[in-house]
Amino acid sequence: MFELQAHHAWQHLDGLTKPSRSLGQLEGLACRLCVIQQTLEPRTTPRRLVLFAGDHGVVASGVSAWPSEVTGLMIQTIVDGKAASTVFARQFQAETIVVNVGTLHGFGNIAGSGTIAYREARVRAGTRNLDHEPALTVEEFEQALAVGREEARAAAQSGHRVVLAGEMGIGNTTPSACLAMLLGNVPLHEAVGPGAGADAAAIERKRAIVERAVARSRSVGPSQPRQAIAGVAGLEIAAMAGFYMESHRLNLTILLDGYVATAAALIAEHLQPGTAGSMLAAHLSAEPGHRRALEALNLKPWLEWQLRLGEGTGALLLLPLLDAAAAMTTQMATLASLQAAGGAS
Amino acid sequence: MFELQAHHAWQHLDGLTKPSRSLGQLEGLACRLCVIQQTLEPRTTPRRLVLFAGDHGVVASGVSAWPSEVTGLMIQTIVDGKAASTVFARQFQAETIVVNVGTLHGFGNIAGSGTIAYREARVRAGTRNLDHEPALTVEEFEQALAVGREEARAAAQSGHRVVLAGEMGIGNTTPSACLAMLLGNVPLHEAVGPGAGADAAAIERKRAIVERAVARSRSVGPSQPRQAIAGVAGLEIAAMAGFYMESHRLNLTILLDGYVATAAALIAEHLQPGTAGSMLAAHLSAEPGHRRALEALNLKPWLEWQLRLGEGTGALLLLPLLDAAAAMTTQMATLASLQAAGGAS
Repeated sequence: MFELQAHHAWQHLDGLTKPSRSLGQLEGLACRLCVIQQTLEPRTTPRRLVLFAGDHGVVASGVSAWPSEVTGLMIQTIVDGKAASTVFARQFQAETIVVNVGTLHGFGNIAGSGTIAYREARVRAGTRNLDHEPALTVEEFEQALAVGREEARAAAQSGHRVVLAGEMGIGNTTPSACLAMLLGNVPLHEAVGPGAGADAAAIERKRAIVERAVARSRSVGPSQPRQAIAGVAGLEIAAMAGFYMESHRLNLTILLDGYVATAAALIAEHLQPGTAGSMLAAHLSAEPGHRRALEALNLKPWLEWQLRLGEGTGALLLLPLLDAAAAMTTQMATLASLQAAGGAS
Repeated sequence: MFELQAHHAWQHLDGLTKPSRSLGQLEGLACRLCVIQQTLEPRTTPRRLVLFAGDHGVVASGVSAWPSEVTGLMIQTIVDGKAASTVFARQFQAETIVVNVGTLHGFGNIAGSGTIAYREARVRAGTRNLDHEPALTVEEFEQALAVGREEARAAAQSGHRVVLAGEMGIGNTTPSACLAMLLGNVPLHEAVGPGAGADAAAIERKRAIVERAVARSRSVGPSQPRQAIAGVAGLEIAAMAGFYMESHRLNLTILLDGYVATAAALIAEHLQPGTAGSMLAAHLSAEPGHRRALEALNLKPWLEWQLRLGEGTGALLLLPLLDAAAAMTTQMATLASLQAAGGAS
């Protein structure tokens, strides 16, 4: 079977009416998109953002600047269309679904004032505190993975071509740091950063907690990878991992967000090697461990804008540039046609 | 009169439902936009791209990898909607007008197959060769400035809020290098780069030519700034300068493109100090002199994607991110409303 490789894409891009490589990184982005979609006519629409929400027991150990209640409040803000993610999703025409995989309290059916869908699929009321015990059992972890898988299938069935996952979960940079260490070999001092605004004392606390939790997961042994991962995961993180795995299997193009999303990508790549081959890393987060975690996935970030909000915002901001890359690839005249028309030498 | 300053914008942005400054550079962009437009409700639509085209006598001295005929061929490609700039302009809803300020040959009325307007306002058939004599007389320079001014007035009259200028002119990084030296104090070895693909020998030739031309302009003396500038300018560059000056006067927000556009901005700021206060520098070009030229204007570039195509492409690529910055500023919920709704501490 013919495989479209990077040099095929470059051959096409270098034949368009512009000095060779004069669109810099946009051309690199276009090349990567062509290789992922295995075509010189890549498509970036329709696209869907799935926002996975969950709470984290470790918040009780003082790792976050915000209380867990904020997760629920933000879900309402998202559904109302007034959170950063939903503002950007509207701007860039990404259909949005919020999936509650496990906040402390459920919402039943909230319609909100917006047109953003909400689905309640809570596996449990937040994770256990990974400071004291494994955050999730293997069974709970698998259930959360399955929630994500279903969302990927639903996106594919609705004809979406590009998918984005975002997360909302106060405290979730702590499990992400554990996963970056466990699966991406990111060293402790880089893996643990300020997240959504922890101060120096909280970062020290967070570092000690992460170190202990990772040691516990490592002691589980390599024969039990799911148990080791589940012990330091989050419900929304596991769901994102399942979403990525199934999206890859269904040939959807995945736009990866920041640090928490990348922790989920590390799980996905570990459980289903090759998954990262469908991914574009939208941006390099301000969270210090992100660069190494992306390197572990062999991914290059495109925007370096010091974003650290989550909710899929970084992935959303790359979306119009991905559109431009696709439009450049498919809509520009070729140098050959220009020469035929008038004789550039 | 109340003046909206950066700290007013930050106060607003820090009160939105996100951790403070967690959207990184996008918040910086939003702050700058608010200050330029003097409002916390900035607007980025409608917007117009004006592409100024002109030829350069200095091409005869071998500074470019492309012959002057390409300027005309590219105008046709642009009007047909198949050049990079027009592909992006369509993608990001920027109305486009091509203004021919002085290519070697005119076109009369070309309708093309696209919906892009074309206006012929040729001041002369290309500039003189600045390697041997002043490129333009003061009168020609003033006429080209006036063409740009008219375009700014037309854009304002049509209700446009954001304006972009782009250029098409084989050989125009040579006058741009002269202007960067003359008006931005950029040193020779940085001012002269490869442009649209000159090789090492051509860069050496270009450097010697630029050095001589700048020395000639400097010898004109500071009492004759317009004569000094005209001697190393281009018709499309002068028109862009006039476009920027009048756009600033009419309170339009200016998205600045790459090196050639910045050379025009240096003229505009020199002739009408304060003009750069209406500008956002969309990107840092791969052309080595660009960083210093922007510094001379006290402008910070937003995208660093190694673009070097021109035609306004860099400015166009920032446009959706500027949209996102404006949407964030005006459409997100405030933390105060979130606290009222449910009690984040």
